[in-house]
Amino acid sequence: MSTSAPIVGAAQATCGEEMMRLIAELYPICRSITGNGIRESLRIIGNIIPLDIHEVPSGTPVFDWTVPREWNIREAWIKDSQGNRIVDFRNSNLHVVSYSLPVHAKLSLAELRPHLFSLPEYPDWIPYRTCYYRETWGFCLRHRQLEQLRDDEYEVYIDSTLADGSLTYGELFLPGETPSEMLFSCHACHPSLCNDNLSGMAVAAFLARQLGAVPHRFSYRFLFIPGTIGSIAWLSRNEARVSSIRHGLVLSCLGDSGAFTYKRSRRGNAEIDRAVAHILQHSGKPYQTVDFSPYGYDERQYCSPGFDLPVGRFSRTANGCYPEYHTSADDLGLIRPGALDASLDQLLSIVNLLERNRAYLNLNPKCEPQLGKRGLYRAMGGLPDAGAQELAMLWVLNLSDGRHTLLDIAERAQVSFAAIAAAAETLCAHELLRERDENNNMADSAQPGTRPPND
Amino acid sequence: MSTSAPIVGAAQATCGEEMMRLIAELYPICRSITGNGIRESLRIIGNIIPLDIHEVPSGTPVFDWTVPREWNIREAWIKDSQGNRIVDFRNSNLHVVSYSLPVHAKLSLAELRPHLFSLPEYPDWIPYRTCYYRETWGFCLRHRQLEQLRDDEYEVYIDSTLADGSLTYGELFLPGETPSEMLFSCHACHPSLCNDNLSGMAVAAFLARQLGAVPHRFSYRFLFIPGTIGSIAWLSRNEARVSSIRHGLVLSCLGDSGAFTYKRSRRGNAEIDRAVAHILQHSGKPYQTVDFSPYGYDERQYCSPGFDLPVGRFSRTANGCYPEYHTSADDLGLIRPGALDASLDQLLSIVNLLERNRAYLNLNPKCEPQLGKRGLYRAMGGLPDAGAQELAMLWVLNLSDGRHTLLDIAERAQVSFAAIAAAAETLCAHELLRERDENNNMADSAQPGTRPPND
Amino acid sequence: MSTSAPIVGAAQATCGEEMMRLIAELYPICRSITGNGIRESLRIIGNIIPLDIHEVPSGTPVFDWTVPREWNIREAWIKDSQGNRIVDFRNSNLHVVSYSLPVHAKLSLAELRPHLFSLPEYPDWIPYRTCYYRETWGFCLRHRQLEQLRDDEYEVYIDSTLADGSLTYGELFLPGETPSEMLFSCHACHPSLCNDNLSGMAVAAFLARQLGAVPHRFSYRFLFIPGTIGSIAWLSRNEARVSSIRHGLVLSCLGDSGAFTYKRSRRGNAEIDRAVAHILQHSGKPYQTVDFSPYGYDERQYCSPGFDLPVGRFSRTANGCYPEYHTSADDLGLIRPGALDASLDQLLSIVNLLERNRAYLNLNPKCEPQLGKRGLYRAMGGLPDAGAQELAMLWVLNLSDGRHTLLDIAERAQVSFAAIAAAAETLCAHELLRERDENNNMADSAQPGTRPPND
Repeated sequence: MSTSAPIVGAAQATCGEEMMRLIAELYPICRSITGNGIRESLRIIGNIIPLDIHEVPSGTPVFDWTVPREWNIREAWIKDSQGNRIVDFRNSNLHVVSYSLPVHAKLSLAELRPHLFSLPEYPDWIPYRTCYYRETWGFCLRHRQLEQLRDDEYEVYIDSTLADGSLTYGELFLPGETPSEMLFSCHACHPSLCNDNLSGMAVAAFLARQLGAVPHRFSYRFLFIPGTIGSIAWLSRNEARVSSIRHGLVLSCLGDSGAFTYKRSRRGNAEIDRAVAHILQHSGKPYQTVDFSPYGYDERQYCSPGFDLPVGRFSRTANGCYPEYHTSADDLGLIRPGALDASLDQLLSIVNLLERNRAYLNLNPKCEPQLGKRGLYRAMGGLPDAGAQELAMLWVLNLSDGRHTLLDIAERAQVSFAAIAAAAETLCAHELLRERDENNNMADSAQPGTRPPND
Repeated sequence: MSTSAPIVGAAQATCGEEMMRLIAELYPICRSITGNGIRESLRIIGNIIPLDIHEVPSGTPVFDWTVPREWNIREAWIKDSQGNRIVDFRNSNLHVVSYSLPVHAKLSLAELRPHLFSLPEYPDWIPYRTCYYRETWGFCLRHRQLEQLRDDEYEVYIDSTLADGSLTYGELFLPGETPSEMLFSCHACHPSLCNDNLSGMAVAAFLARQLGAVPHRFSYRFLFIPGTIGSIAWLSRNEARVSSIRHGLVLSCLGDSGAFTYKRSRRGNAEIDRAVAHILQHSGKPYQTVDFSPYGYDERQYCSPGFDLPVGRFSRTANGCYPEYHTSADDLGLIRPGALDASLDQLLSIVNLLERNRAYLNLNPKCEPQLGKRGLYRAMGGLPDAGAQELAMLWVLNLSDGRHTLLDIAERAQVSFAAIAAAAETLCAHELLRERDENNNMADSAQPGTRPPND
Repeated sequence: MSTSAPIVGAAQATCGEEMMRLIAELYPICRSITGNGIRESLRIIGNIIPLDIHEVPSGTPVFDWTVPREWNIREAWIKDSQGNRIVDFRNSNLHVVSYSLPVHAKLSLAELRPHLFSLPEYPDWIPYRTCYYRETWGFCLRHRQLEQLRDDEYEVYIDSTLADGSLTYGELFLPGETPSEMLFSCHACHPSLCNDNLSGMAVAAFLARQLGAVPHRFSYRFLFIPGTIGSIAWLSRNEARVSSIRHGLVLSCLGDSGAFTYKRSRRGNAEIDRAVAHILQHSGKPYQTVDFSPYGYDERQYCSPGFDLPVGRFSRTANGCYPEYHTSADDLGLIRPGALDASLDQLLSIVNLLERNRAYLNLNPKCEPQLGKRGLYRAMGGLPDAGAQELAMLWVLNLSDGRHTLLDIAERAQVSFAAIAAAAETLCAHELLRERDENNNMADSAQPGTRPPND
């Protein structure tokens, strides 16, 4: 029964500062969907967890897509006619549109202008823009600066290469007692943006480290991949494996101080959807759950109709819902160690719930068993209310007919999963309950295949 | 794919004035459930659409009913003892209770009184009353006049005949690409009452004229029938045909300026119910939907348990819900050309939706197809929101697993059917989607019977 | 068709005063889960209804439990050092913890204190406490008195016996036209407590008396049992019989002036659940329904997963929800004859509904039958609303396709069951409707097994 105990003590993460340090180390690197930036980032994460690094050659067909050429950049700037570097990649890697072609030219402001991107509503922030699948180039800059550009001859220089190479992603598989697995996926392709998604990468890495240190029922798979093309490439290369994915979460935007946001899987009522909603509901803090929609991060691919995996997305403030999103203001100041810790905590609670969520059989299904003679019920009768522990035991007994999991019971009883799971454990210890032994759920019973007496 | 295009351009009806003229021409005629009034009315409608006229002889058994004798009336009045015609059918055909037996007698006020009907709460309006299935006679008059009648000897005269003849109804069948049909039914038996139901007759006639001018997938059947006995007679004579009715609407009260009211079919969630609700929801205007109840117009018969057809009722202010209902105040002043036009518009939108509402198959169900390389996705990445058209395409792709129609998708996406249908059309044109070829839905595929790859 | 008529005239109970007299007679008796108190109480109830008395010997195993030894008590007191009886069982049988072992000892206050129970929040009330399954003893007293006890030597005396004997319960079975039965169960084990549960016992007895005087479709079983162990013993001894239980109610707390509270069965939407909710909803008075939970009275056992019977609980203010609950303040002053009468009334209405709740077949399912020619429809047409009786008939006709019971129809029509049942009776009398003859529902048809024509 070791797996029914919490995986980590009180599920209180205390590595917020460590996660912050990891993020600070990753922050300056210019990542993109391919190239040395993501390669270097995965190497750093590999210092925390034993990540397998995969390289998929440019040109490899992956479903309807083709792995693009690899992009690398060394230098980029705009000089005015006096030779002042008015925009310089060395100051912020957001200054260059990701996947910009190499260019070296002198242009008038009018010629340059279509290649410049800014945010009029946030004139002090540099936007993040990409042109992955279109051969062009561009610079991003503060709107305040853009407005002050005078008619001049500008020299633009981007020392980038777009050439055959490979797409890089990191993968960690933690085998469990069963081949059924839970997938955690985070995009690792954004440049100097902290909440989106260095926070997701850091939380995933530390979650993996914790899970790697304890036994667990499910197998766990962590993917650190470039957005869209990365999940498409992984799914294409692992098509035979996806049927083992029983639960999954895309992790993103986990470091800001906003309330948690859970985006349900396409199925809408998968076990992962119910588990996350339950944990958030009993967290005592504000949260929101939103329906699946086919826009967002890699849940788009996991939940495409040909896969329809039970994969939701776990975030704090969701993508596009905070002003700093995809701007230079999504920096180290936007994220907090406490927020990262609390995100990790919630994920551990979700994992704990799923690990322990099984169906049990009441071994005395006809009337209540006499809890009192086993010391499980208060001695004195006549009190107006049942105690919380007694009530949790009564709920578990009443609904453990083999058709209800502990989460089903917690939902109907409107009691936390933790209380219901503790009651089940007590009842198992007193041989009043046993795990239902179907679906390879590792029952501790010697009679495989037996059915509840009242079925 | 011609049928997936809108049937009428922008579904903007502009024949309100024509409908008003038709109503004005029909208004003076004394219609009843049989007789020359309805016969003459159907002839006038025949000037607009090629109506087939059916005559069902008196005495014909139709289910539990019998076609009644034919009623015709030429003259009717009440004279006081000075010979003044104080009530005269020539002033308003509502003055005579419909189906009144012939009478010529002199009566005291006390003897006359039980034959007089008025509306105390609306003393200036003449009520509309009928005695179809009971042999009696009566007059309707303004309550103000009734109260002033003094004790006198009155001469009453009704020159009517109730004799073997026939029940008359009009029918128009517009064959489509499939034998599946949509039924529009309106009652054509009310005398000088405009909203109920000259408005329904006019809108039905002009809807039929528009549908007759374009190709369409479904067949369309229009019935202009006397209420209750007409739909019973039609169902009795067409019992073998009703299984082709896939959608249907009873049309009534479509000329007043009130909000639309949709009364669901007995089934409650038939495609017609969902289609009308969707169109009204996305109309941007107030509306209400109400549950089926077995009281109202001919939906009572179409939705009787032995038929249980998917037939709802489309109205503006529903019967019994406006004070002028079934009174002389339901006159030409109560209805508006703009209201008639808007009613016709909504019906065209409903027809368009149903014509285009099919299930499709995403031909790249595993992960998203790369829309960008087909020019279907914006070139620049990193923006916080998906464009509306891109999001509609993503929804169609995500849910086109063969189990969702476009209406299912529009409902889940909370996007207008028009946007979803346009996205589907674009995706079909790029061979990313094809119509599911089951149920004789005329798929444009050469492989009949194939299933979605992910089924 | 006699059984379709109301079982009792207008379901107006007028025996509130009789019930009060019965409760007053039972009030002084010291009942417990075994012993002469409950035996004597059942004898008194036997004056009203012919109760069968069952004795189950101590030591009998009943599922996970064992019938306990029989407890009887004759005398109990606490004397101070001056020999004053400061607590005396003769003043209130609540003074002794039920099932207290015999004791005779002199104790200091410190030694006595752990054996004393009071209610600090209600200092003038004596609490009710039990120690059925633990060998100990105790006294209950007013908190005000407890606080004034001075340091003294006290003599405690309990002249009780706990010895092999038997558990006693009363049962009445009223055979009906079918072996399907409805169970009414009330706990009869509480000492001088009026609302909980002399009220339930009295209402059950008078309900049984009324049902015994009229013919009925269902069989009715009444149980007057000690709580928990009584229902467990009955279920253990009648396991083969429970499959006949089609509906059931646990009766408790039916004499106070609070609103009715219905606690649903574990199934949540059993016919009994819907029936009670409907009756309460149409009662015009405040009420509440609550979900099943595995805490409360004997519904815990009837709804254990091995039985899962359709048994709800009918109360006024529920156990634990009024301050006088399980205290000496639950006395004759807490209950009212009118409240008892109204409780009985509601139960008779529930019984009437269940007796009459069957599915019927519209014999003219295609279109409406012509009600007018049968005198069932008003003669004059054109009025804006259907009359209530006509509308009820139309609903019954529309939904009597063999798949809807009268309760289904009443719920959908949002009309009282009584109105729907009356309409069904009228339609049966006119041969427009007949009872569906499946499931041994005693159809009055000569063609067993026929199906609705439109199936």
